[in-house]
Amino acid sequence: MRLRNKPWAQELIAAHPELITIAANSTPSTWQECFPSKQPLELEIGSGKGQFIMEKARQNPQHNFLALELQTAALAMILKKQVVAQLPNLQLLQANAQNLTELFAPQSVTKLYLNFSDPWPKTRHEKRRLVAPNFLKLYQQLLVPQGQLEFKTDNRGLFEYALCSLNNFPLHLEQVSLDLHASELAAENIPTEYEDKFSQKGQPIYFLQASFPEI
Amino acid sequence: MRLRNKPWAQELIAAHPELITIAANSTPSTWQECFPSKQPLELEIGSGKGQFIMEKARQNPQHNFLALELQTAALAMILKKQVVAQLPNLQLLQANAQNLTELFAPQSVTKLYLNFSDPWPKTRHEKRRLVAPNFLKLYQQLLVPQGQLEFKTDNRGLFEYALCSLNNFPLHLEQVSLDLHASELAAENIPTEYEDKFSQKGQPIYFLQASFPEI
Ligand SMILES: C[S@@+](CC[C@H](N)C(=O)[O-])C[C@H]1O[C@@H](n2cnc3c(N)ncnc32)[C@H](O)[C@@H]1O
Ligand SMILES: C[S@@+](CC[C@H](N)C(=O)[O-])C[C@H]1O[C@@H](n2cnc3c(N)ncnc32)[C@H](O)[C@@H]1O
Repeated sequence: MRLRNKPWAQELIAAHPELITIAANSTPSTWQECFPSKQPLELEIGSGKGQFIMEKARQNPQHNFLALELQTAALAMILKKQVVAQLPNLQLLQANAQNLTELFAPQSVTKLYLNFSDPWPKTRHEKRRLVAPNFLKLYQQLLVPQGQLEFKTDNRGLFEYALCSLNNFPLHLEQVSLDLHASELAAENIPTEYEDKFSQKGQPIYFLQASFPEI
Repeated sequence: MRLRNKPWAQELIAAHPELITIAANSTPSTWQECFPSKQPLELEIGSGKGQFIMEKARQNPQHNFLALELQTAALAMILKKQVVAQLPNLQLLQANAQNLTELFAPQSVTKLYLNFSDPWPKTRHEKRRLVAPNFLKLYQQLLVPQGQLEFKTDNRGLFEYALCSLNNFPLHLEQVSLDLHASELAAENIPTEYEDKFSQKGQPIYFLQASFPEI
């Protein structure tokens, strides 16, 4: 997904250093400094317009949430809503997931969310998939022992790939749903923008929850 | 699936000891004795009316195939076709999969097929599912090191369960398809009776191939 440029984005971001960090400029030595309360930190990678992470933060005031996103235009959309909502337990981070280990202390994150990640269907792009082993290695470093990963997508090929990739890493598969919205998990599910779009078309949403083994 | 009783079944089975073994009566010390050629042995558990295993045997004369089935009526249907086809590399076995380790020497089977196994959706019946850990333990004993398991089903709940059960055992997931008939695997797929029925209704067929780790 490539969002249209927003002329107001840069200015809004520059005006709110208390809500958003630009990785290239400065990274805190610990993310807990950025939140009023020191509480378990959960991270979403590729938050898009932030519907999921904002609702997650709203429903879980006893956890801190960090929305990591590459695109300025997407971040500006989250920030615009957060300037109004002022959720104390939500921070934004503009960065590339490839640099995760430079951005987080080891074992500083309890849970990680990947929602409707770009599928990169060509085999030669496998390493760009956020569920490829090169990324799983990074996640393992920043997650606490037995830290969890949740992943949802409408993309069949990416989900099939994820199942094998996680299995072979190995991660421990705790839950799988091949039609999230028809399952008993639907009640507590928080949909993303992409999820709303694809489930309206009648496509099944795939979901998994897995944990890293103790090293 | 419970097939209607066939009055001719018992008589047909009794007339063909060269093609079918009744586990309760006699089990050979090695299955290879029952085939004209000693070749890798593949086993299907719950063969139903045998469409899959007969075609598999036809296409792969360099492997031996054994169709294991509980129901007399189902076995008689396979046998009736096999009396005509006389595939040298196909044998039938009437037995309950629960007794597998009494029926096979350790490491005597190279590959195992589970097709549209009974789903047993109630949690209290979990141990009856042919992909439950108690069955995986049996399979591991009779399979050669790194022996393979192939599983297909239309049943979403059973497939979700299988993914977690195999992962946690652990087996190594080699391939997963969440819509076998729409995938590149479709070309070489041999459909079962149940598969024909469910895919005609437009339901996706789930497929996985996995291997046991070396012990
Ligand atoms: C397909 S969109 C999904 C957005 C949102 N999660 C949803 O479900 O509606 C994928 C998002 O991931 C972001 N993204 C892709 N690769 C990234 C990376 N390496 N680091 C950070 N964000 C990334 C993209 O900019 C895009 O906003
Ligand atoms: C739902 S049918 C599927 C038949 C066939 N595989 C197909 O796909 O058309 C399941 C079959 O497994 C057999 N079966 C179930 N449990 C078994 C067991 N423990 N041992 C051997 N066969 C079993 C049943 O008798 C039945 O024929």
